Amino acid sequence: MSLLVVGSVAYDGIETPFGKTDRILGGSATYISLTSSYFTKPVNLVGVVGKDFADEDIELLKSKDIDLQGLQIDNSGNTFFWSGKYHYDLNNRDTLDTQLNVFERFDPVIPEAYKDAKFIALGNIEPSLQSKVLDQVSNPGFVVMDTMNFWIEGTPDALKETLKKVDLLVINDSEARELANEPNLLKAAEIVMSMGPTSLIIKKGEHGALLFTGSEIFSAPAYPVIDIFDPTGAGDSFLGGMLGWLAYTDDLSSHNMRRAVIMGSVMASFCVEKFGPERLKDLTEKEIYDRYREFRELSEIPDFDEF
Amino acid sequence: MSLLVVGSVAYDGIETPFGKTDRILGGSATYISLTSSYFTKPVNLVGVVGKDFADEDIELLKSKDIDLQGLQIDNSGNTFFWSGKYHYDLNNRDTLDTQLNVFERFDPVIPEAYKDAKFIALGNIEPSLQSKVLDQVSNPGFVVMDTMNFWIEGTPDALKETLKKVDLLVINDSEARELANEPNLLKAAEIVMSMGPTSLIIKKGEHGALLFTGSEIFSAPAYPVIDIFDPTGAGDSFLGGMLGWLAYTDDLSSHNMRRAVIMGSVMASFCVEKFGPERLKDLTEKEIYDRYREFRELSEIPDFDEF
Repeated sequence: MSLLVVGSVAYDGIETPFGKTDRILGGSATYISLTSSYFTKPVNLVGVVGKDFADEDIELLKSKDIDLQGLQIDNSGNTFFWSGKYHYDLNNRDTLDTQLNVFERFDPVIPEAYKDAKFIALGNIEPSLQSKVLDQVSNPGFVVMDTMNFWIEGTPDALKETLKKVDLLVINDSEARELANEPNLLKAAEIVMSMGPTSLIIKKGEHGALLFTGSEIFSAPAYPVIDIFDPTGAGDSFLGGMLGWLAYTDDLSSHNMRRAVIMGSVMASFCVEKFGPERLKDLTEKEIYDRYREFRELSEIPDFDEF
Repeated sequence: MSLLVVGSVAYDGIETPFGKTDRILGGSATYISLTSSYFTKPVNLVGVVGKDFADEDIELLKSKDIDLQGLQIDNSGNTFFWSGKYHYDLNNRDTLDTQLNVFERFDPVIPEAYKDAKFIALGNIEPSLQSKVLDQVSNPGFVVMDTMNFWIEGTPDALKETLKKVDLLVINDSEARELANEPNLLKAAEIVMSMGPTSLIIKKGEHGALLFTGSEIFSAPAYPVIDIFDPTGAGDSFLGGMLGWLAYTDDLSSHNMRRAVIMGSVMASFCVEKFGPERLKDLTEKEIYDRYREFRELSEIPDFDEF
């Protein structure tokens, strides 16, 4: 199944306790596309870049069979640029610079060829733009959405409108608590699901993730990465791996949603091993499936009847 | 297999957002004994109580086949009393009152009949007293120890001496970080295990627990309890359920240690459903095993090969 990905394409400047890069390919649509491309083809990307966007980055995306018909090239300015510095514990970061550039005027236009998309990933952009994407798709089958505290606080009404049209929301624990205005995470999940999404994934960083589908809960472990090199893109890689798997299998059962959560966790665990999307350029099928098996072993509870 | 439990026996005054009790049976040895008694018999309790200790509490312990030969009754004073108030989020509490009473002079004496104990639970008491217990046991087979920040900060040398004699340490994540002086939890686990214990359990509250056995890691989920009534005793109930299972099965394989962690999680999840040890008085085997199965379902990752 094809997959429609809408989000930012950017350059990032990243400093972590382990190193520094002044400019590396980034953005939510980039990470989602790269990771989902390991599972399903084609990945149809909708985004905008500026006149400075490098040919080698176009080639990288194309090499992964990512369709770029929907990537606007706006020669009036430069590509969205963000730079930040991670603290020692890697759970917090300071934004050093944000230059929206051509992204400030981003108006997602869905090419004709993409309009019958069944699986749709709405990366973390302004909620009204996320809605605008859905309005252009003829019959959206399964819509996954990311968002952040900036929109929860800044544009709550537009966010709630978009949420009504979404099948699965993927957010982190602090965002879930803020969106629901409820400190208890399980109660927050109920409240968020009453806003529209029939499924919800709450990412808990080093504590794994929770998947809520109807009345069922799945608790996914975190991969024990001793040395996280750079957390940038981990959340988007999670979303891409997860939705890539769902689009590939075209199976939305809660059973298969569990697999999707683990595929997302697998891709996130690779992402953090190197700077930016470096580790996502040349993964092998064997590496991906081996790590999936590691997740299974990590959390396998033996039946006591077998004893 | 019999189980030796050493720790505090106390009365607690507890206030949570859901209610208040002025005086209820408590203490680490109480919770460990009650929970382990569902799995193995006899549970041999070593502790001290004062002249105010109620006959009905003696009867409760006896009704669970908990052997009280090792329970000293010191008529010179009252039983250890603690009272505290939990905050709205139940993750933090303020101690309102601590009256050590007869516990201040607690000198654990292991009765002859207990000295061949193979499975030993050292509840959270002064590390030098924990060592003293081990010195009296002829051939300790598997020693599990709990401790807390108070001893990590106050008596680090005695704590490190005791750690050398321990097989499994059970602590929470903040204690592990403090003991190892290392913020990264996985690195902290390595450091703590270099201090003596061959196995380590790190409890993460609402995020479950990690079991480290040699180079293997097991990630156990937390049970999604929407309404935690009273967290008092949850950690000791975890320890009791876990060690009770190990003593019952007499199997220390990493495979069976995983089962033990889940049995501990099961007992902790029951403990928090009512005030103090109320919920631990009349559990059925079916309730326990059904909840074990719920834990399995909660974290089961389907194999993708089955797809």
